[in-house]
Parts: sequence; structure tokens; C-alpha cells
Amino acid sequence: MREHIMQLAINKAWQYQGLTYPNPAVGAVIIYQDRVIALQAHQKAGTSHAEVLALIEAFETLSAQTIDFDRFDAHKAHHFLQNLPKGFFAECSIYITLEPCSHVGKTPSCASLLELLQLKKVVIALKDPIDGHSGGIQRLQKAGVEVEVGVMQKEAQELLEPFLIWQKRAFVLFKLAQTTNGRIGGGYLSSQESLTHVHQMREVCDRLVIGGATVRHDRPTLDCRFSKGKAPNILIYSQQKSFDQEIPLFQIQNREVEVSSNLDFLEKPSFIIIEGGEGMLNTMQTKIDWYLTYQTPKLSTNPLGYSINRELSFLHVNNKGVDMMIWSK
Amino acid sequence: MREHIMQLAINKAWQYQGLTYPNPAVGAVIIYQDRVIALQAHQKAGTSHAEVLALIEAFETLSAQTIDFDRFDAHKAHHFLQNLPKGFFAECSIYITLEPCSHVGKTPSCASLLELLQLKKVVIALKDPIDGHSGGIQRLQKAGVEVEVGVMQKEAQELLEPFLIWQKRAFVLFKLAQTTNGRIGGGYLSSQESLTHVHQMREVCDRLVIGGATVRHDRPTLDCRFSKGKAPNILIYSQQKSFDQEIPLFQIQNREVEVSSNLDFLEKPSFIIIEGGEGMLNTMQTKIDWYLTYQTPKLSTNPLGYSINRELSFLHVNNKGVDMMIWSK
Repeated sequence: MREHIMQLAINKAWQYQGLTYPNPAVGAVIIYQDRVIALQAHQKAGTSHAEVLALIEAFETLSAQTIDFDRFDAHKAHHFLQNLPKGFFAECSIYITLEPCSHVGKTPSCASLLELLQLKKVVIALKDPIDGHSGGIQRLQKAGVEVEVGVMQKEAQELLEPFLIWQKRAFVLFKLAQTTNGRIGGGYLSSQESLTHVHQMREVCDRLVIGGATVRHDRPTLDCRFSKGKAPNILIYSQQKSFDQEIPLFQIQNREVEVSSNLDFLEKPSFIIIEGGEGMLNTMQTKIDWYLTYQTPKLSTNPLGYSINRELSFLHVNNKGVDMMIWSK
Repeated sequence: MREHIMQLAINKAWQYQGLTYPNPAVGAVIIYQDRVIALQAHQKAGTSHAEVLALIEAFETLSAQTIDFDRFDAHKAHHFLQNLPKGFFAECSIYITLEPCSHVGKTPSCASLLELLQLKKVVIALKDPIDGHSGGIQRLQKAGVEVEVGVMQKEAQELLEPFLIWQKRAFVLFKLAQTTNGRIGGGYLSSQESLTHVHQMREVCDRLVIGGATVRHDRPTLDCRFSKGKAPNILIYSQQKSFDQEIPLFQIQNREVEVSSNLDFLEKPSFIIIEGGEGMLNTMQTKIDWYLTYQTPKLSTNPLGYSINRELSFLHVNNKGVDMMIWSK
């Protein structure tokens, strides 16, 4: 059962993979008696962590009340939880995919919150592997909380991989949208959910890389209108510097567009998304860490596919509306 | 939590979708205190049902013993369970994706077994929709067992769809193996698990349909060597009746091979698998109920793809070794 519950937390965290940049994707489940009373994930850097969102949801379920403040405001959420009657969560266990943070960053420390709330048990998939980040487990144990570490550790490690990469250099994600028979370039995505997700991902990345040929041919906008966010800075990967400035991507306010064939910037810790087809796949293949393939439930007669030899491994599949999102590397 | 537990049972049942023909795919979970102590599915017609396999596994977990008879022998398994000390499962709940059978067929009735064993609670996703099959719920309720019906009913209904179709006419499954960029015909499947699964599916179907052009070009064997089973009967769909009898599929013992372009046999209740590429997809498109796409984690430069316009919906995805199996319709 511990594994099944942790799997729920891991699956939930995968829904926000990448979107939490520069934070890691983390999920949390709270169990009361034999019920899952909360299932949450960290959604966006600077907002409440997974544990905090789960505790708020657990409070709402147990008290049959709804909180009236912004739950994503970590300071408000911590303050609220710290002031609940002592022992409110005494019969609850929490499952977390990563050791709760013991340091105070943009948000208060989750370990000290859990120490105060004294849940029955804290189950953690993975110790925080970053130097100076760990200490949460020790802190809880010192405070007499029962802590179990290592449930679904391998799966939690895979979930954390982008975070570990973007500490050191660019994490490079190649994004592709295709039909089930592998046709691309037709604006195929069937669900508004996946379109919105593409725009959310663009919004958080440091730079969106696109090939010069695609820019000339497709004349894209590459903004974040579906998520109502700031359009990403663009690197047009091209030897040839001249582009028609009427192409929509040049018309967007508050965005930088650079035309270059220099990839040295990939050495810098960052999150880079490449959008493109066969050409960019071939050009960038040694630079790509992971692929995110949106696969739509359509078969198409569009002749445009992509040809490249590459062995992958599937990391995670989840639904986005009627489409599916395949994470692979 | 009820939904999460039932989802485990549903996912387990999907692993044997089709393989249970002519029986339905059914899954079962047993909970003791807050632990999943058994997770099983019906695997093959004529062998123990999901509930029985789960009860045997639960016995093994609770008693820390291993049974020494064939658990798939339904008569032995029922006999064993009926003779356990009264109240052995009194603290257990069982979750089942389909109402337990109340009639005695090739195997004894599961409803009467559950009536005898008096579990704490029986949770059922879906009432058996077949006339004359239901009655299990009523029987349990009369015996004073707490029964809850309707948890994850929609998902359980989808799981049951092939079974409902093959009661009335042929259930037609189109099988396809492809790379992630939609290339076919290269013998791509990366895992022995998916190859074995293909052969297990062939073994249970009533007839394997294949196009004449594929037979001439690929000279296939179409046997079940990986599952060590009897090779399926073949219908070569072709107007032209003459084939080189040296093609391996004609060399297999104990199989019928028919060459025909008459599809009237699809009106008969049965389970038909079509293997093929673009040609058969186009020819058979109005006859296909579901697709089973084995997608392997490879990108390939093989030019052979398949072009057809078709809107699908994804039903279920599961892993088979490193590959994934996508059920769609």
C-alpha cells in the first residue's frame, strides 16, 4: 500500500514536471484512516510546496470548511497551518516524493512545519540529494516524528532528474506534437489542455530554441496566450541572420529574440525548450536530455513525419485532455 | 481512496484485456487494515476468476504460507478457500471491477464463495449487464454482507466493452507495432514482453486476419512460439486465391488457413485480430472496434509509415517491458 500511495504522489508530481522550474517536481499525499484526503503537487516556484498544499486540502476535507485565502501564498498557508489546534493532524500520515526542505528560501521551511504539526508518520521517497538542502529528515526524527525513507526511491529519482541537471547546466527538453501515426506540423493537438500546457512550459523556460527554417516556413508566434503568460525569449538557431521582421514572433512585446548558431549558453544552469521537427532533432540530438511528445488520438494522411535513429526510454505517460503526454529520454 | 483502490483493480484487469476471451477482463484487490494484500486479475477463461486469485494471494500474505496446488484450477482454489477457518477474511474488504458471478459455469460461483467467506465489505464497480449473469449482489446482500456498487463504474464499463461486443458479433481488434515516430514493418518491438503478449493474443483469438499483400511480401509465420501456444487460424484477406505454399504460415501444424474476401463471418460472436499496415487499415476501417498499438521507445529512419485519416480516443495505456501498449478506439 505504501508503494501505491507514493505512486499517487509521484504521478501527481509528474503533472507539473518542468513547470516548477527552478524548483523540483514534488508530490504529496495525506492519508487519514484508510482514505486519501489530499493529493497535491508543487505547481510553481515561489508558491506553496506540495506538503503545504496537501495539508491545506487535508484541513478542508477533515473540517468540511474551505479556506478563504490564497493557498499558493506560502507565507499565508504556513501561518494558517501553524495556528491550527495542536494535534489537528495527529491521525494523519503524509507521503512526500522528496525530503521536506529544512532551509528557508522564498517560502518557509516545510520540515519545521511538519515538526510542529506532529503527524502520525512521514513517508519520504527520496532524501534531498542537494548539498545543504537535506536535514529535514533528521530534524523530524529529532522531534520524535516517525519517518520512513526510501519508498519508491527509484521512481522519485527519475522525477527529480531535470532538477539535478539544471543545477549544473542547461536541461534541454525537445517538445514535439504528433498524431499517433507520427505526423507532425499540422497543429494537431486535440485538447485545449495540451495547448495550454505547451504555453505554460514556454512561460517558465529560460529560452525557447527554434530552427531558422521553421521560422521562415511556419511564421510562428510562439507566445503564451493560452496560459496568459509572458512570451519566452527566443533563440532562432540559424547561420543566416536575416529574417522577415513581420513574422509574428518578432511582434511580441517584452521578449528578446536572438539569431545565432552558438550553443555555448547550454553550459549555463537553465531550462531550455527546443521546438522543431526533423531538422532540429538531427541538429540538436547530442544536446537533448529529454523529449516531451504530445500524442494526439488521431491518424493522419499528412505526409510530414520525422526520421531519425534514436533509442529512447519511456519515463512517464499522462493524459492531457484527450491527448497523452509522453516523457522519454 | 475507494476510487484509487478500484483503479488498481481496473489497471490490473487491463493487463489481461482480450486474453480472457470469451470471459470479461476483471480485476480484484483485497485490503486488510490499510494495506493492499492482494491485487489480481482473471487471466484466462476456464481458470480461477479474479476474486479467487485475490483471495488465495490474501491467504498467502496473511498466513505467510504458500499454497501447494495450482491456483488457476478453480475447483481446487474454491475448495481450499471454502475450508479455511470461519472468519479468516473477516477483517478484509474486496474490490472487484465486476459483480461476482452467481451462476456455476466452467468454474464454481464466486458470489456463493464470498457469501460463505463473509468479508467485511464487498465493493463492486459495475453490475453484471448480461441477462442471467447478475444476482451476485443480491445474494451477498441477502447473506448480510455490506456491498457497495458503482465505484469507478464508467471506467469499469469501458473495460467490459469487448466482452459486450463479442456476445453479439465479432469484436475486431486491429494490432499494430510501431516506433514512437510511427514507423511500422521493421520488427521493432523492443521487449520480449510485448512479443510474448502478441503471441498470447493470437492464441486466444478465433481468427487472425492478414492481408494478401503482406503475406506475399513479408512471408510471415504468424505462430505463437513465444507463448508456446497453438497457432491461430488464419484468414488471408485477398481476392486472389493462389499463394506460394512455402510461405512459413502454411507450414504450421493444426491450423486452418482460408483465403477469402468475404467478411460475413464478422457477424458471428467471436474475437478477431487483424494484423497489417496501411492497406488493411484502410480496407477494414469500418469493421475495426479497437486498436492495440504497441509503441516502442525508438525513433527510426525507416520510411514505412501508415497514412489514414481517423479520429481515435485513447482508452488505456500500459507498459509492456520497455514498450507501451496503447488501447484506443
